[in-house]
Amino acid sequence: MKKIIDPWGSGLLEDYEKIIKDFGLEIFDVKLFPEANRIMRRGVVFAGRDLKIISDAIKKKKKYYVLSGIMPSNEKIHFGTKMVVENIKYFQEHGAETYILVADLEAASTRGVTLKEARKRALDFHIPAYVALGLDIKKTTFYFQSENKEVMNNAYEFAKKITLNEFKAIYGSADPGKIMASITQAADVLYPQFKERMPGIIPVGVDQDPHIRLTRDVVRRVKERRLFLPSSLYHKYTPSLDGNIKMSKSRPESCIELPEDISLVKKKIKNALSGGRDTLEEHRKKGAIIEKDMVFELMKQHLVEDDRELNKIYNDYKSGKMTSGELKELACIKMEKFMNNFVKGVEKARKQIGRLKFVKFK
Amino acid sequence: MKKIIDPWGSGLLEDYEKIIKDFGLEIFDVKLFPEANRIMRRGVVFAGRDLKIISDAIKKKKKYYVLSGIMPSNEKIHFGTKMVVENIKYFQEHGAETYILVADLEAASTRGVTLKEARKRALDFHIPAYVALGLDIKKTTFYFQSENKEVMNNAYEFAKKITLNEFKAIYGSADPGKIMASITQAADVLYPQFKERMPGIIPVGVDQDPHIRLTRDVVRRVKERRLFLPSSLYHKYTPSLDGNIKMSKSRPESCIELPEDISLVKKKIKNALSGGRDTLEEHRKKGAIIEKDMVFELMKQHLVEDDRELNKIYNDYKSGKMTSGELKELACIKMEKFMNNFVKGVEKARKQIGRLKFVKFK
Repeated sequence: MKKIIDPWGSGLLEDYEKIIKDFGLEIFDVKLFPEANRIMRRGVVFAGRDLKIISDAIKKKKKYYVLSGIMPSNEKIHFGTKMVVENIKYFQEHGAETYILVADLEAASTRGVTLKEARKRALDFHIPAYVALGLDIKKTTFYFQSENKEVMNNAYEFAKKITLNEFKAIYGSADPGKIMASITQAADVLYPQFKERMPGIIPVGVDQDPHIRLTRDVVRRVKERRLFLPSSLYHKYTPSLDGNIKMSKSRPESCIELPEDISLVKKKIKNALSGGRDTLEEHRKKGAIIEKDMVFELMKQHLVEDDRELNKIYNDYKSGKMTSGELKELACIKMEKFMNNFVKGVEKARKQIGRLKFVKFK
Repeated sequence: MKKIIDPWGSGLLEDYEKIIKDFGLEIFDVKLFPEANRIMRRGVVFAGRDLKIISDAIKKKKKYYVLSGIMPSNEKIHFGTKMVVENIKYFQEHGAETYILVADLEAASTRGVTLKEARKRALDFHIPAYVALGLDIKKTTFYFQSENKEVMNNAYEFAKKITLNEFKAIYGSADPGKIMASITQAADVLYPQFKERMPGIIPVGVDQDPHIRLTRDVVRRVKERRLFLPSSLYHKYTPSLDGNIKMSKSRPESCIELPEDISLVKKKIKNALSGGRDTLEEHRKKGAIIEKDMVFELMKQHLVEDDRELNKIYNDYKSGKMTSGELKELACIKMEKFMNNFVKGVEKARKQIGRLKFVKFK
């Protein structure tokens, strides 16, 4: 079996190899994608489905699309969202038609957020945050689910194709709001194809794979419509600062949200699980255990863009030349810069909101 | 306990008394409704929920609405639909705002009928059939579910309020298409109240009560919206000609559809379960057992408008003066007249379809 390539690997690789096997994913092959972005180059993007067709579309300049949804359930995002946006940006810069939908119906049917409140949150924060993270609004088509009759109508048609047991097998559970939201999401994923059949790629965190499976099942059952099976691209979770595979708001001391007060974030970084040795003497002699260092993982995933710079940090830290305290100090400096830019970027983008290209519905 | 009033009762009364008890319905009280229609007067309309509020609205000329849905799954209706239309007509003539929706989303999500096909069937047959049966199109507001964003959007909000187990408890089963259709139907039932809070009545066959219960549960859970609980009105089934409680297409020899070839219908009537005695002599002496006579039940429910005429038939048949053959002959004559008028009425109404008042959606 091919292995996930992660030249600066964390200790969580085995978990992802299990996911690939259990879900039947392809291992991500960076060679398929010209000018791969940071998270692709570093094995953070680690798997996908039907990636060859997207690679071909890029290389042969054929039509394809990239699509993602905003779930406006609160006014924070996390590092996972940042990675989704970075992957959208990659495909947007490599010829994809770009669609971003606001999943206001999902917010209503699964979280009880009113459509009005969801709209406000999307316009005030989420869309500006996506722009701050690199989305080109001039090249992006936006819509609200609640306004998209074609998506809703198709959701009803698709519902006939799925049984409750299949739904439970895919999602592990089922309740009416979740069922409606998920089937509607399948219609969203296919929406760009309703006008014109073309391949599409959906970059997601691996926990979103059930939606991809449901959508692919639907496509297979409406053969007569000749839709492309959507391709998908998975990134790893940004690990929790305490070494867990995923940050969780239920452990706030190990979780960083965007935006978050920087002095609090620095404190969390200082307390993060480290690969440094118990004494300076031991550290200088043996060097850091990088695989278990969550701050290095954070820098690799998010804070250091340049590969040579990352390599130098890796080598210095691994050899013991750089201490855990120095690494954390550096991470804090970089995090502060990033967070400042993000907050400023959101404010700036908020002013551009009038220029968004929304789908006009009759 | 109060009893269902049915002066010309069939043998199926006990079944309906069980339904009333099991579902927690009110027994229909004809005195609540001025100028009661034929099926109300005759105990065919036998139960309801919250009927007093509708009675008050009629008597005090307050705003209220009557609403019903067309399920365009094929190009036939049955006697149950006829009774629904007769009850709609009653409320329409007694001050109700009238709404008829085409449940094209339900046809798609539960039967796999495309929206396009559903629309065609509704316009070609179902709406004209409703007009032929007495609906006043000038006083009726129509819409297609698939065009009504407000209904769809509310369906998603309502979905959050219902669990899968509640759904199963109400419907006995659950699959994604049925869940979406039923929750959407709840939004339909409440749609007239989204603009202005007012009581509404939904005339249905008793097998449709789960939708009423679901809708009432939803209303109770969105208290802050201050919606009226929908009232409902139930008619008995037109019994199968073989004596079963309900006609079923799976027993075609005992089931009459609208429209249906009249020579076939006459044959079915001739073979129907009769209350006539084995010999003429016995019949003259003891008279018919009316409770088990399905042809008399058909005449009572549908074919004889005038109460005095029905009374005379009842007395003649019960006393043995009229034979079973004579009753069936009379039923055939009346059925032929009805079916001819229905077919002509549908054709005529088809030409008026351009004059329907559809909701204009932005």
